[in-house]
Amino acid sequence: MRTLKLTISYDGTRFVGWQRQAAGESIQGLLEDALARFEGSPVTVHGAGRTDAGVHALGQVASVRVTCSHDVTTLTRALNAQLPEDVRILAVDEAAPDFHARFSATAKTYRYMIRNGPIAMPFERAYVWHLTEPLNVDAMQRAAALLVGTHDFAAFQSVGTDTPGSVRTILRSGIRQPEPSLLSYQVTGEGFLRHMVRALTGTLVEVGRGWREPDSIASLLAGGRRSDAGATAPPRGLFLVSVDYH
Amino acid sequence: MRTLKLTISYDGTRFVGWQRQAAGESIQGLLEDALARFEGSPVTVHGAGRTDAGVHALGQVASVRVTCSHDVTTLTRALNAQLPEDVRILAVDEAAPDFHARFSATAKTYRYMIRNGPIAMPFERAYVWHLTEPLNVDAMQRAAALLVGTHDFAAFQSVGTDTPGSVRTILRSGIRQPEPSLLSYQVTGEGFLRHMVRALTGTLVEVGRGWREPDSIASLLAGGRRSDAGATAPPRGLFLVSVDYH
Repeated sequence: MRTLKLTISYDGTRFVGWQRQAAGESIQGLLEDALARFEGSPVTVHGAGRTDAGVHALGQVASVRVTCSHDVTTLTRALNAQLPEDVRILAVDEAAPDFHARFSATAKTYRYMIRNGPIAMPFERAYVWHLTEPLNVDAMQRAAALLVGTHDFAAFQSVGTDTPGSVRTILRSGIRQPEPSLLSYQVTGEGFLRHMVRALTGTLVEVGRGWREPDSIASLLAGGRRSDAGATAPPRGLFLVSVDYH
Repeated sequence: MRTLKLTISYDGTRFVGWQRQAAGESIQGLLEDALARFEGSPVTVHGAGRTDAGVHALGQVASVRVTCSHDVTTLTRALNAQLPEDVRILAVDEAAPDFHARFSATAKTYRYMIRNGPIAMPFERAYVWHLTEPLNVDAMQRAAALLVGTHDFAAFQSVGTDTPGSVRTILRSGIRQPEPSLLSYQVTGEGFLRHMVRALTGTLVEVGRGWREPDSIASLLAGGRRSDAGATAPPRGLFLVSVDYH
């Protein structure tokens, strides 16, 4: 058996999400089906992050154990030839036998894109949250910085998290403004709760709108409930950027 | 009667093209239907460039004569509320009574995007021509520069051009490389023949592949036939960037 590490980019727009489900097309399902054709038998692909329907990936990572002997360059080309254009294998690498995309990960980075202006261009319609009212970027930046550290993020999780507890460690959290009307919230953490990045983004946007103070983040991290934090931002603006391993 | 100038961006992927046709959705048709609702009677929208199916626009310009008295800000907002997200009105401006988007135009600029690397990212799949074999950018640039001036572009036209003659004036023509594996061919001209930018791009790509010399452009401009030039590049990589007026 070989263990392979796959690095994958996808446009999540038309998918039910990363995870294989009873109905609808998933990234995991497409990869498992494509790999099973080489392997001649079913395979299980483990993803580092279970992105939801409509969420995108620039560098999702998955692991899979196979017996086939094709070299990694051939596998990359052959998988891309089988996959639809909205899913691309960026790299296939040999990994240690005990490598597991999810359990071996030390950190994950997500990015959330917001178009903050009167008009969202047609080409970005599936990749940004479009907000027309001007946001206070300085206030959002102050609030974003307060998220760094080890905190109880219970106020930012949806039901259905499959790992126990709600204490997580955030390593970096900041807002950038690559264009005057474009905001990018990027957050790196050792682990995330279900819908956590979208709940954080929705809360930061409420800070940007002046509906809550930047400092209110502190009380949310000290025993806040989900209803105390902001709404969950829509999936279309969210990208899984990269996954770190030792 | 007022004459309005509309500046429009669209993702051409799912449309039959700019022009209204018997079957399928067109940009012209969507705009005429949306404007007719304000006007209470049918209107005719004239576009500066009749982009083909799958061709995009960053700044298409259209003109229309209307009687309605809504101010331009209200019209912009109301039209965008009616239009699908892949078509956006960027601006509505009052124009001189004799303004006509096509006949008043002094120049148009098109851009053609080529991803020249092993993998096209999912997010750009509808917006680039993906070519894996390395292209000689210097040779393409030399060939592109030879197109500037007033020449007979008969070798670069498809049947169906509706303006007489095949002599056109190109003001600027150049290749840029915004990223190592991304090429952008941008061309500004007083007028273009049908499929001309895509035929120029297809020919420049054959230069980049080493299939023809940069200097072969000169003989194509001196009595060449369509079969002497390169293949027509696919529509997905082409953008109408802007239209100039005095």
